[in-house]
This record gives sequence, structure tokens and C-alpha cells, in this order.
Amino acid sequence: MAVQLEQIIKRFPELLQLQQGSPATPIERLQAGHLATASEMIFVSDAKHLNDAKRGGSQIWVVQTKLLESMPKPWPEAVVASPNPYLAMAWIGKAFFPSRPGITPVDGIEKHPSAVISSSAKLGKNIKIGPGVVISDGVELADEVIIGANSVIEPFVKIGARTHIHPLVFIGHSCEIGSDCEIKPHSTIGGEGFGFAHDQKGQHHHITHYGRVIIEDRVHIGASVQIDRGTFDDSRIGEGTKLDNHSHFGHNIRIGKNSILVGGQLFAGSVSVGSNCIFGGRISSQGHLSITDNVHLMGLSAISKDIDKPGKYGGLPLQTVMDEQRTRAILPLLPKMKKQLTRILKKLEMDDE
Amino acid sequence: MAVQLEQIIKRFPELLQLQQGSPATPIERLQAGHLATASEMIFVSDAKHLNDAKRGGSQIWVVQTKLLESMPKPWPEAVVASPNPYLAMAWIGKAFFPSRPGITPVDGIEKHPSAVISSSAKLGKNIKIGPGVVISDGVELADEVIIGANSVIEPFVKIGARTHIHPLVFIGHSCEIGSDCEIKPHSTIGGEGFGFAHDQKGQHHHITHYGRVIIEDRVHIGASVQIDRGTFDDSRIGEGTKLDNHSHFGHNIRIGKNSILVGGQLFAGSVSVGSNCIFGGRISSQGHLSITDNVHLMGLSAISKDIDKPGKYGGLPLQTVMDEQRTRAILPLLPKMKKQLTRILKKLEMDDE
Amino acid sequence: MAVQLEQIIKRFPELLQLQQGSPATPIERLQAGHLATASEMIFVSDAKHLNDAKRGGSQIWVVQTKLLESMPKPWPEAVVASPNPYLAMAWIGKAFFPSRPGITPVDGIEKHPSAVISSSAKLGKNIKIGPGVVISDGVELADEVIIGANSVIEPFVKIGARTHIHPLVFIGHSCEIGSDCEIKPHSTIGGEGFGFAHDQKGQHHHITHYGRVIIEDRVHIGASVQIDRGTFDDSRIGEGTKLDNHSHFGHNIRIGKNSILVGGQLFAGSVSVGSNCIFGGRISSQGHLSITDNVHLMGLSAISKDIDKPGKYGGLPLQTVMDEQRTRAILPLLPKMKKQLTRILKKLEMDDE
Repeated sequence: MAVQLEQIIKRFPELLQLQQGSPATPIERLQAGHLATASEMIFVSDAKHLNDAKRGGSQIWVVQTKLLESMPKPWPEAVVASPNPYLAMAWIGKAFFPSRPGITPVDGIEKHPSAVISSSAKLGKNIKIGPGVVISDGVELADEVIIGANSVIEPFVKIGARTHIHPLVFIGHSCEIGSDCEIKPHSTIGGEGFGFAHDQKGQHHHITHYGRVIIEDRVHIGASVQIDRGTFDDSRIGEGTKLDNHSHFGHNIRIGKNSILVGGQLFAGSVSVGSNCIFGGRISSQGHLSITDNVHLMGLSAISKDIDKPGKYGGLPLQTVMDEQRTRAILPLLPKMKKQLTRILKKLEMDDE
Repeated sequence: MAVQLEQIIKRFPELLQLQQGSPATPIERLQAGHLATASEMIFVSDAKHLNDAKRGGSQIWVVQTKLLESMPKPWPEAVVASPNPYLAMAWIGKAFFPSRPGITPVDGIEKHPSAVISSSAKLGKNIKIGPGVVISDGVELADEVIIGANSVIEPFVKIGARTHIHPLVFIGHSCEIGSDCEIKPHSTIGGEGFGFAHDQKGQHHHITHYGRVIIEDRVHIGASVQIDRGTFDDSRIGEGTKLDNHSHFGHNIRIGKNSILVGGQLFAGSVSVGSNCIFGGRISSQGHLSITDNVHLMGLSAISKDIDKPGKYGGLPLQTVMDEQRTRAILPLLPKMKKQLTRILKKLEMDDE
Repeated sequence: MAVQLEQIIKRFPELLQLQQGSPATPIERLQAGHLATASEMIFVSDAKHLNDAKRGGSQIWVVQTKLLESMPKPWPEAVVASPNPYLAMAWIGKAFFPSRPGITPVDGIEKHPSAVISSSAKLGKNIKIGPGVVISDGVELADEVIIGANSVIEPFVKIGARTHIHPLVFIGHSCEIGSDCEIKPHSTIGGEGFGFAHDQKGQHHHITHYGRVIIEDRVHIGASVQIDRGTFDDSRIGEGTKLDNHSHFGHNIRIGKNSILVGGQLFAGSVSVGSNCIFGGRISSQGHLSITDNVHLMGLSAISKDIDKPGKYGGLPLQTVMDEQRTRAILPLLPKMKKQLTRILKKLEMDDE
């Protein structure tokens, strides 16, 4: 099962340059610096990782090129320079040491006979379909798609090549998922939005939602995420965007490309988020707002108006990160400030109104 | 597939009055004003929608009756007056242009043979049961119930007529769901509550929960919602209440009729909410509290004591919406206020305590 | 179905001492004091429960030993003293009046033939496997394990004796679950973490996660909980810890023993929580932080640095509970304080900067 160092370096020549050691060095697996044994490859991006690396026993280090000069001798047996060791770790892991939950092989059967597949579904090549999966009428799966056990794919859904739907996922009718996407368990893609008309008796009547959810290529969707379909327009998640677990995106959500939204987002309907945004955890947004590209938000922020200008913001109401940190620092001082005010008013013989 | 305008108007005579145009006008589908083509029906509730309508190309407008006077000529080919165009959209959509996720037909089979149905279950007429569904012992399904693929219905659950359980839903034993309800994917109705007794060693022992969850008629429950069963009493969601995605309601929750709670609610145990309440997103409540009827809460509010008086509240601690908005507006000013206090104390030669 | 009082007392002699009444008294079920009828057993822990008990009609009371003296005559027919009536309720309920959702029996079949069980899985004795369950290659289930309908257990997962996996749960490959655990519906144990490397084009590349999730004995995990696997190390939930519904724990989470975390937790990656902690609802934590043992946190708190000292904390930033309550009490006063400051500045003829 070990991989020769040479094979790895040849695969990613721009990312890996051998500095020292035998190309034939066998690598058993990737590992964290402080946990590693001799034949496990580790990744050293900065000085902190260098300390971890010394605590462990790895003899195969991938080191940030700029760190090489300051790296004390003796070096480990094999040293590989990289302009981006963390990216090297991602690519080497995926290519040579894969470990993916959500596939659930049972006795080597690729398309499990317990799956229910409509006669009108169109399936590409080398598709894996787990036990209990439901593939409804008119679904189209491109080559090498994986559908995890007990997932439910509704009519006319299209899923692009190599996309991996984990077990126990729901994808509503007519939605489109791009290539090289990943959707983790218990997510609901394309449920109807929460829109109601109200009558004179105070009763609420659900609005039919005709839009779809469109997920572009290379999108990651975490576990227990809900993305509602649009009322008439489509909801859309842009190419390369990554959404973490435990989030809710209301109807007509639009997110641009290569944005990263960590866990716990809660977006009301008709919100638009730009490209290259980075949102911390547990962010909330009111409906019908627009956030431009390149916006970074602190965790726990609440969006209550449009953000037109790229930048780093936080809080409720939103302000710059620096200003929000100043506001937060004052909060524990409020009781003291209140007492000071009372003393001042008294001294000045002013009333307390 | 097109529907004649006349058919629609005849179905809802109190809601729709033809002002202009041929009763035979064919309608292909409903649409948003700005996106519409000639044969798509649109809905104009206010002046803003009028602008959207002009941008699009629809020739079949349902217009709020009061707007007709101010609507500039030339009118589109067909104009229908309505006292409530948004309600008209809800009803027309449901009756004539249905589009529902969560049904998952496979090859036209209504009761899929892969479903596991107990011999002691009682099924009404015209029921649809998706692939992989589990209907346990003693379950009773009324007429026209739909159970989506891979959902699990535990023993002795009763489900009322026309209720639609989406795929991948869990309903715990003995719970009762009313008529005309909807429960979206990945919701857990009737799990046990989070109640523990503690022993002298600091270990926690789970309390058995004997209550049920009772969902009354016309309730909507979003995706990934948890409603725990009561300890001895039942948890209960009142008639016509609508709960959005991504919420947790602890044991012994009680919610009245026709309330609307948008996404991200988190309620500890034994909370009681009244009727006709409207709660914004991401609201939290401590346990054992009671909120009266007709309470509106701003998103992100936290309930830490009973609310006895109808009104609009927000914040933590709760205050009126107007006061809460004033408090929020001050937060960015706190660092400046702190500096002002320091200057004043210095000027008055007072100490900083 | 009724149980004789004597049977119950004999089972838990240290917890129950008969004070009055016939050992042969039949008990139909457990009940809340105010709801009870004559043959239902109730539990009286404090003076408040005594009032509830009087409102109901139970003739079989389990009473906190210290309350006996102050309990007015006439007593109910049977009175049992207990040093911990709430613990007695937990144990008696579990032993004599079980009521567990998540088992879904269908026609008395213990191992349902619709379950898909790998030929390489190892199953202990008296195991219950619901319809539609998937048990993948190399899984090991100890004796008396229950796997609820449509749950998906990935390769090489090990599950300890008497552990109950509810329906519609996902457990990722190689994870280990201890004995006497419970995992409620729609939880995802062992999904990959949300870790990405970034390239020069601003695209994000997923890091493979090699760690497992280890759940020790007697752990409770609520519904719709996500626990991600570690990058290299394992994520770990300690013995006897209880996690409520609707929570997300990022990769490399570590929680100690006998801690209680109520609903709505959101933890970024690499957080460590101690033993005997109690966390209120909707707590958030930044990544790479460490919280020591015996920490109690108020609901809605946000952890932004290590907590080294046991104690009770709350807020953002965290302070002692008492200080946080003082801060919260000031918030509604901020607009008034702002006006006071303005008046003072004016009176002192100071500028407003």
C-alpha cells in the first residue's frame, strides 16, 4: 500500500521539488507532524509546524520553500520543497491516500439492487449507487457520479460528472448539480421556500415555488444544510463555493464563486452574496439584501442592510472588524460606565433624566 | 397544459374579477413580473410590482383592485382585479399549476413495493407511499396522504387526510399529525426530550418521555426541524401554524394557532407560545416560559421571561422594537462614549472608579 | 401490564424505602403529579412538586426523604421515600415502563429482510435491525445493539453493546461508538471536516480527513447533530457526556466525561471541552480553543479564548455570570446614557469628540 516518493513528485512537479533523499522512499500515509512515524509524510507550512515536526518521527517532510534556509540540520532523510505545503497535502491526499466517508460499499456491489431506479433515468458510466437509493423519473447522472445509501433524487434532477452525493441526502425535482461537487448527509436541496399569503381570517396559504436550485461545479455542501428553491427564479450557488454544515439558505439565495461560508449560516429569502467572500460561523441575514464580492464577515454577525463595499466587517449592526472589536471590548465596562455617569450627574447637580 | 383564464376565475370568484380581455386567454404558467412572457400570468400587489410588471412581457395581470385606477394605459391584454393578488397567486398555483417537491414518483407506481408496511397498519384511499418508506405497526393513514421516499413512521402514528410527509422524515411512535399538513425532509417529530436525572457520582440518567407530539391541521413544518415529545404531557403545534426550516423545539413545547416562526428557532423545554405570533429568525428561548398571543419578535431575540402583553419586541433582554433599535444604534458609539467619560472625569478631577 | 410496587422497590433498594401502603399496590404507569390518577406513580422532589401532587389524584407517591416530615396528613395510600426521586423516576421508567422511539418494529421481525447487511459484518446476539438499514463491509455490532430503520453504517464502524442508533442516522467509516449510547435521527457522525487549502487562483481544495470519531460509553447524541472526523487525530466524545439536538461540532472536537451540552452548539474545529461541563443553548466557539473541566456557560455565549479556570461564565466577550447579567441589564439604558453624556458635555462646554 506504500507509495514511492518519486511517484508523488512526478504527479505534482510544480508543487514539489525533491531537496534531499531517495526517490524510492516508501510513504505509508500522510500524518500530522507531532504524531508521525518515520515512513509517514508530513507538511511544514510555517515555523510552528517545524516545532511539531521535530516532536514527531517523520523522515519525509514537505517544507515551505522559504523555510528551508532556517531549517536546522540534521535534516530528516527526505526533504521536499513546496511553495504551498498545505495545497500539496490536499492534492497528495486526494490522489494517493483517499479516505472518503459517504460511499458505503457493501460486498463490492457498485449499483446495489435494492436501489430503486426509474426506467426513464439516464445513467452515465462507472456510476456508484448505494443501497436504498431512489432515482426518480427523468433523472440524469453523468459519468462517475456516486449516490450514497438511502438518498432520494427527485424527478428531472441533473447531476454532473464525478459529483458525490453522500447518504441520506434529498434533492428536489428539477434541480441541477454541477460536476465535482460534494453534498454531505442529511442536506435538503430544493425544498420549497417559506412563503405564505395571508387571508382576512389571519390564516396563511403556502406559495408554490417554481424555481430550481442550481449548484455549479466544484461546490461543497456540508451536512444538514437546507437550500430552498426560488419562487420563480432559481436559487444558485456559484462555482467553487464551499458551504459548511448546519446552515439554512432561504428561497432565491444567490452566492457567487469561490466563497467560503462556515457552519451555522441562517439566510432569509432573496439574499445575494458575492464571489470570494469569507463568512465566519453563525451569521444571520435579513431577506432581500445584497452583499458584494470580497466581503469578510466575523462570526456571529448579522446583516441588516446591503454591503456595497469589499472589506472586513462584524457585529450587529455591522461595522469594520476593528470597530466591532472595540465595541465588544467595552461591553464588560458598561456597569462601571453607568456608575461613573451617576456620580458625574450628582457632582454637577444635574438630574438623572 | 395551458389553462383558460375563465376556468381560473370561475374557481375563485370572490378573489378574481375580469376587467378586460378574453375569458379564453390561455395561461401557460405563473411568473414573476420582470421575468414573464406574454402567456404567463403575473400578480401586481403594489406600485413596486407595477414597475416589475412593465419590465416583463406578461399580457395577463392580476392587479390589486385599488391599483387599477392609477395603472397607466395601455393596459395588457387581460386584466383581472383582486382584493388580494398574493393570495390569488397561492390558490391559483396550488389548484392549477402544482409543483411539489417531496413526492418522488418512480415509473408511476403509487404505493412502491419496496416500502415496508406493517400488516396492522390501516391505510385510507388514494394514498401515495414512496420507495423505502417504513410504516410500522398500528399506523393509521387517512385518505390521500403522501409519504415521501425513505421516511420512517413509527408504531401507532396517526396522519390526517391529504397530509404530505416529505422524504427522509422521522415520526416517533404514537404521535398524531392532522389533516392538510406538510413536513419537509430530515425533520424529527417525536424524539425524546433532553431530560436527565443526576446521581451522586455526577453521572446523568435519561428520563423516559411518555408524551406525544400532536400536530393539528394545516401545520407546515420545514426541513431539519426537531420537535421533541413531552415528558408526560404532549407537545402540541396548533392549527394553521407554520414553522420554517432548521429549528429545535424542546420537550413539552406548545404553540398556538396561525403563528409563523421563521428559520432557526431554538426553544428549551416547556415553552408555550400563543396564537397569531410572528417570530423572526434565530430566536432563542429559555425553558418554562409563556408567550401570549399576538406577539411579534425581531430576529435574533432571546426570550428570558414570560411575555404577558401582545406587542412587538426584540433584543436581549427583550424590549419594544423601537427601544431595541435605539439600543442597537448606540453600540457602535460605545468606544467614543467611553473616551468622553474619561475626559469628563479628568476635567472634573474625579477618580476613574 | 401493571407492576406491583414491591417489584419496583426490590429492584432499587438504595433508592426506594416503603413508608406506608401495601407492597402489592399495582402501578399502571408513571405520571406528572398534577395529571395523575390513583394507580399512577408520581415523584415529589421538592415543595413545588408537593403542590402539583395534591392537585392530581395519585395514591402512590415517591417523596424526597427530607420532605416526608413536612408532608401534611392524610398521606396518599402508598408512600415511598427516596433520597433522589428524579433519579428514581429515570430508573423505574427505564426498567419497568419503557417507551422508546426509534425502534420501529414491523410485524415483530427483529432483523428486517429489507436491511442490507454486508457478508463481512460481524453481528452479536439479540441485535435488532430495522427495515432499509445499511450495514457495510467490516462493521462490528456488539450484543443487543439496535439500528433504526434506514440508518446507514459505513465500513469498519464498531458499535458497543446495547447502543441504540435511531432511524435515519449516518455513521461514517471506521468510527467507534461505545456501549449504552444513543444517537437520535438525522445525525451525521464522522463526516469529513471543513478544511480547505487555497491555490493562487483563489480556489479551495478539500483536505482529506483521516481521523475517526470516537464516542465513548453512555453518550447521548441528539437529533440533527453533526460531529466531523478529525484531520489526523480522532474527534472524541467522552464517557457519559450528553449532547442535545441541533448542534455542529467541527473536526478534531474533544469533549470530556459527563458534560451536558444543550441544543444549538456550534463549534469550529479543534476545540477541546473538559469534563463535568454544563453549556446552555446556542453557544458558539472559535476554533483551536481549550475549555477546562467544570465550566458552566450561559446560553448564547461565545467562546473566543481559552477558559483555564472552572467557573460560571457568559456573554461575548465571556465574563462571570454575575458580570454578564450586569452588562445585559445596562443595554436597554444605553440611549439614556448617551443623552446624559451629551448634556454633561454641553454643560461643561466640552466638545463632542
